[in-house]
Amino acid sequence: MSALTIKKFLRVATPSLDNNVGDAERVNIALGENFDTKNIIWPLDLLRDIARILRTNGGDITATLFTDGDTIKIINIESGNTADSHFGIAVDIGTTVVAAELVDLHKGKSLAAAGDINGQVVYGEDLLTRLHFSSQGGLSKLHQTLLDTINGLIAKVCDIANIDVNQVSAICAAGNTSMTHLLLGLDPSPIRREPYAPVLAKVPMFAAKDLGLNIMPNAAVYIFPSVGSFLGGDLVAGALSAGIDERDEISLLLDIGTNGEMILGNNEWLLAGAGAAGPALEGGVAECAKRAEPGAIDRVNIDKATLEPSYSVIGDIEPTGLCGSGLIDAIAALYNAGLLDTTGHFILEKNTDRWQLINNKPAYIIRYADKTRGIPLIYISEKDIQNVMRTKAAMVAALTILLDSVGLDINSIDRVYTAGSFGIHLSIESSKAIGLYPKLPTERFVQLGNGSLKGAKEVLLNAGKINDANRIAEKITYLELNIHPAFMSIFRSAKYLDGGH
Amino acid sequence: MSALTIKKFLRVATPSLDNNVGDAERVNIALGENFDTKNIIWPLDLLRDIARILRTNGGDITATLFTDGDTIKIINIESGNTADSHFGIAVDIGTTVVAAELVDLHKGKSLAAAGDINGQVVYGEDLLTRLHFSSQGGLSKLHQTLLDTINGLIAKVCDIANIDVNQVSAICAAGNTSMTHLLLGLDPSPIRREPYAPVLAKVPMFAAKDLGLNIMPNAAVYIFPSVGSFLGGDLVAGALSAGIDERDEISLLLDIGTNGEMILGNNEWLLAGAGAAGPALEGGVAECAKRAEPGAIDRVNIDKATLEPSYSVIGDIEPTGLCGSGLIDAIAALYNAGLLDTTGHFILEKNTDRWQLINNKPAYIIRYADKTRGIPLIYISEKDIQNVMRTKAAMVAALTILLDSVGLDINSIDRVYTAGSFGIHLSIESSKAIGLYPKLPTERFVQLGNGSLKGAKEVLLNAGKINDANRIAEKITYLELNIHPAFMSIFRSAKYLDGGH
Repeated sequence: MSALTIKKFLRVATPSLDNNVGDAERVNIALGENFDTKNIIWPLDLLRDIARILRTNGGDITATLFTDGDTIKIINIESGNTADSHFGIAVDIGTTVVAAELVDLHKGKSLAAAGDINGQVVYGEDLLTRLHFSSQGGLSKLHQTLLDTINGLIAKVCDIANIDVNQVSAICAAGNTSMTHLLLGLDPSPIRREPYAPVLAKVPMFAAKDLGLNIMPNAAVYIFPSVGSFLGGDLVAGALSAGIDERDEISLLLDIGTNGEMILGNNEWLLAGAGAAGPALEGGVAECAKRAEPGAIDRVNIDKATLEPSYSVIGDIEPTGLCGSGLIDAIAALYNAGLLDTTGHFILEKNTDRWQLINNKPAYIIRYADKTRGIPLIYISEKDIQNVMRTKAAMVAALTILLDSVGLDINSIDRVYTAGSFGIHLSIESSKAIGLYPKLPTERFVQLGNGSLKGAKEVLLNAGKINDANRIAEKITYLELNIHPAFMSIFRSAKYLDGGH
Repeated sequence: MSALTIKKFLRVATPSLDNNVGDAERVNIALGENFDTKNIIWPLDLLRDIARILRTNGGDITATLFTDGDTIKIINIESGNTADSHFGIAVDIGTTVVAAELVDLHKGKSLAAAGDINGQVVYGEDLLTRLHFSSQGGLSKLHQTLLDTINGLIAKVCDIANIDVNQVSAICAAGNTSMTHLLLGLDPSPIRREPYAPVLAKVPMFAAKDLGLNIMPNAAVYIFPSVGSFLGGDLVAGALSAGIDERDEISLLLDIGTNGEMILGNNEWLLAGAGAAGPALEGGVAECAKRAEPGAIDRVNIDKATLEPSYSVIGDIEPTGLCGSGLIDAIAALYNAGLLDTTGHFILEKNTDRWQLINNKPAYIIRYADKTRGIPLIYISEKDIQNVMRTKAAMVAALTILLDSVGLDINSIDRVYTAGSFGIHLSIESSKAIGLYPKLPTERFVQLGNGSLKGAKEVLLNAGKINDANRIAEKITYLELNIHPAFMSIFRSAKYLDGGH
């Protein structure tokens, strides 16, 4: 097992009248003593520097390289033995949040992590707005803001660990198909138009400098392959991280974000689908919604006797909004308290002070406003609930079709991995209660966390996993649910709160 | 047989709901139906453009690519069928003159040729001065002026043929080891210092944009491999062009320029050497010397009875100097007329008006000055003759050692190919007369012309010859004559006009 890039200390022969082959060729000979392949690729800038480097330390050098077994790509050459100074960065490119983790590839341990809002949000909170912007000439802005976000995170994690960005020789990134396109500067707008063909699914490896990533110029950049327009490398990375293709038992990977993507399968088959249900849980969609950050109400309960709410706030500060997990909790609590019917409408006959008309529509107040303390009115509306029910119905419809197509029922699922920006925070019980998650025993659920970042880190530490990731991507059969004849009828029948799995 | 780059018309499937794999992947599938390899490399700029190109002409495209059998590198994608618009340029990078030839790779014929003075001459007429300048911080200037010269020639030949430089998808270049280094921006100065190790001998293929060559950005650039510091790709290209490694008979390739390089051998073995004798024949060395261009006296004869000279002038205009071939002719004529002894000194006792003291040294006047017609005094001095005799002695010493080391004598040479900037023009009879060429029957001599450019053109038209060129380079055993114990003694004994082979 070796990292995505390899550092190798080499003693290169000093040239003499008896051995005056070229500098680069003597390095190749030294590499040939350590690696099987004779196909060695040099970048021009290193050829321009190799004579100096070889003469700095009597031919003692450390080569940084990437190899796929057939070919060695030389990434860097340093004078002396620097093999223990070896770094890579894993990146999860979310539509809303981008996360990065700096990894010491010599010691195999994390050094620093950071996250930031994807700079593209100024061009649209949701993906569809951005794709439209891209098709209207906004591609280069989307491309550049994403690069700026990633480069900012690179600088941040390197700063935390006190290493120079030029010491980073590898980046492994995963994102949905649109984000992958935008990182490469490819127009993703055709992804959302019939026939939903991306520019590419399997991404070639490029040098960091070609992509505009501010690390070692020739650093290896591996980007997880997509399966199709609607199933991106983030899901493939999550599947890799969960190891769902390694076990006999059937697993389900759920990534609840904009789309509600999922992968079902085991070591023999993998089936995937996505219900394009709209960004019900994304910050900015629910009327009082905010991202899962300090000030967001992330847990909500409602007392069945008093019908009064209780909640917790991220960061233990005054609440300023409701994040996705708070929203799911609130809906489950309203339903459990008998304040909500199965169609997602309030039962206003139930007597509580918490009912209030907001813009002439009924809402349940979770927190009254307190201007002196900077607290806004925080409530949940029927429209918020309908949005979540659409997401839930899309998840149910997608999973039902996936299970049907392999003749299995819900109980055959041995493990449910929840991932994605919402899966990290959602309460399993609340999600099961409203039917967003399948009604399976809680012990079968595994909160994967940021599976995309985890998968990226695995490849960073073990280049052999590139083959696993590619194999997973190739093995997945993607069902285009948007055009599946049964999707809409199941979707409609699942738009009820008891219409779970 | 296919050219260095291949143009292939492809009908790429239109994406549909049943086949919505990525644009690039659909191109790869179409390529896979035409080529064996599945390893296809895309440059980022073409990925960024492929969606548009595929939709311009209903999926009809023409791919320009390079393949070594294992891997396909995509160089360009054009809409529609442009397979008959396919161009490449062969370049011979001489220390003094750079020559370029534009070739229609579809029809296999030359379209235009041009030559220009290597812009580096402003930093030194001879190579040693330039290598010194390079080691003193002049590398980037030498690199840039060479690029300027080559790009100027590219523009010129494309202009003659009325094609856009961006239609040129291949360049094949050959030059000595120093020029090869300077084209790549590598410091060549260690080449002339013990232990004479270059940065590299076998040059990787780079894209034109990486090298700063103004043609199609991803165009394939093949540069002939060197054998060592003193035997460059120009000789390898010449050997390829002469086909000396294809025949049972023994051939000698002579390249008389700064060094007097040579390759001796047949289909079983190849032996090479170079006598670093100084640039006796280069323009600017002999006192009245000029390059082989209009106004240069290129042929000289001396009447044995009257001792009066006759000459011809390139371009049939008034003479302004003496080029290398005129110098060789003049020396041979002086010797044949009894005006020169075997040590290269004038026999001033022979009575002729042509003797004259120039700077207190005797000289033979070839043309009296005529200021009204712009004609300078054109003469040959003993110093000029000594310079040529050193070159001749170096050639003799080199060939003697090469022949000795394989136990052969001069008569075993079946063919003598003369190449290089002087070999094109030198009179075979005069060169044999003064011992510069071996004294073999004239019918064994073949004037190869610019063998370097010819070899480059062969690879341009037939990519399979890359393997031949690499095989020749690997097969050549290079004798380091500078340090050969016998060289100086043979050199000294050969410094006489009858001291031929």
